[in-house]
Amino acid sequence: MRESFARQEFMATIHAELVRVAAGEVDIQVPHDPRLTQQHGFLHAGVVTAAVDSACGYAALTLMAEEAEVLTVELKINLLEPATGRRLLARGRVLRSGRTLTVCRGEAVVVSEAAETIVATLLTTMMAVHVGA
Amino acid sequence: MRESFARQEFMATIHAELVRVAAGEVDIQVPHDPRLTQQHGFLHAGVVTAAVDSACGYAALTLMAEEAEVLTVELKINLLEPATGRRLLARGRVLRSGRTLTVCRGEAVVVSEAAETIVATLLTTMMAVHVGA
Amino acid sequence: MRESFARQEFMATIHAELVRVAAGEVDIQVPHDPRLTQQHGFLHAGVVTAAVDSACGYAALTLMAEEAEVLTVELKINLLEPATGRRLLARGRVLRSGRTLTVCRGEAVVVSEAAETIVATLLTTMMAVHVGA
Amino acid sequence: MRESFARQEFMATIHAELVRVAAGEVDIQVPHDPRLTQQHGFLHAGVVTAAVDSACGYAALTLMAEEAEVLTVELKINLLEPATGRRLLARGRVLRSGRTLTVCRGEAVVVSEAAETIVATLLTTMMAVHVGA
Repeated sequence: MRESFARQEFMATIHAELVRVAAGEVDIQVPHDPRLTQQHGFLHAGVVTAAVDSACGYAALTLMAEEAEVLTVELKINLLEPATGRRLLARGRVLRSGRTLTVCRGEAVVVSEAAETIVATLLTTMMAVHVGA
Repeated sequence: MRESFARQEFMATIHAELVRVAAGEVDIQVPHDPRLTQQHGFLHAGVVTAAVDSACGYAALTLMAEEAEVLTVELKINLLEPATGRRLLARGRVLRSGRTLTVCRGEAVVVSEAAETIVATLLTTMMAVHVGA
Repeated sequence: MRESFARQEFMATIHAELVRVAAGEVDIQVPHDPRLTQQHGFLHAGVVTAAVDSACGYAALTLMAEEAEVLTVELKINLLEPATGRRLLARGRVLRSGRTLTVCRGEAVVVSEAAETIVATLLTTMMAVHVGA
Repeated sequence: MRESFARQEFMATIHAELVRVAAGEVDIQVPHDPRLTQQHGFLHAGVVTAAVDSACGYAALTLMAEEAEVLTVELKINLLEPATGRRLLARGRVLRSGRTLTVCRGEAVVVSEAAETIVATLLTTMMAVHVGA
């Protein structure tokens, strides 16, 4: 998984970092960066979506067969608050793991000194792709 | 609108370009860039989503009052094919324009010499925000 | 397909009728019925969703192998206008047909004497299930 | 709220019952009924969606101003398992309550003697409508 993550150039472009990997649970952190903002200086919805989508994809991957790869079939995200703050934490959690399809819930929070605020919630369907000889 | 687009640093980071603006219709183009790829060398789903979301947001803005700004309330995207090819074209179209909420449909296509392939289809709710003194 | 439709008791309960079946395209009609309304006398969102979901499911089924059955994996619907009028027409159209997954777009319109009004737009993922000995 | 629920003919048609109302939280119960099934004898996806949508709508209403009414702007549901069993419990919970828009998460579970199984998860945007003289 860490190897797959390292090959995602876009994750490097946004300085995303895997900060937690457990069975069915992955967290990814994205530091604030002026290059990733929309017109009001907040993280762009596309960056928030990319981070939560990736967290969910890797969470799904933790429960798949070893040789499987994961594709996002579809995702739906509600953006609740502007993504302000110094870093964004994206959490992906598996709700249901099937042979072909995995359903995950994700959320993005911004973390300040004492508190965290949920800025987005996501629901997504992932597909296991069995690559082979 | 072009001024708002120019202030979106993330659109500059992905070299996105407004290529068509009409009432209720906006197209945005994103050239292929290795910095924006996932582990298989295709454009990352987050980049595709960001491009179509922006095309829809600006399409919504064309039908809003002059001083209004636009926020994405939520979006849902189905990723149909890998985003290969030399450039991605994201199209946003308004389906229903209301005083507060606007519903848009978007799609992303990859363009090769003779044909285009739909790689994603999106459905989104946008909100007019009236900023003021 | 017509046999499968006939076995859906809920379609009979809401007096839904298959009015068009073509490759990748199915239309279902639901007459207005006071038993199917919400608190303002319009068709309940659940009834609208059921009709468009079924139209999409059967549209997907037209392109699947003969012995396959179809399941709704997920759907997203935007409700644009109240479902008034004497009958609702639900249209399902296949956007992408794959071996396992099919993506469809649907819409619900209300039909009056001279015009039709779009009351809902839907995007959904369907799955082929191969039942067998 | 109970008065609004009582005026929803469709809720009566499916024998839905309000079983819990608290601030931001509403549960609705639907007994199994052969009239509400799809071709395999499970509750139809449209019925499941209607129940969870209503639970979320009333959950949103608990946090709105007294004279407000609630409309579903959009919803997205993932169907995880067939809705078997003797009764379906639909739970609606408010995630974020705003002046105009409320975002809710919902789930449907089937309840058997000893356990409950999640059969669907839903994410939805509700809108407060201020009706008046």
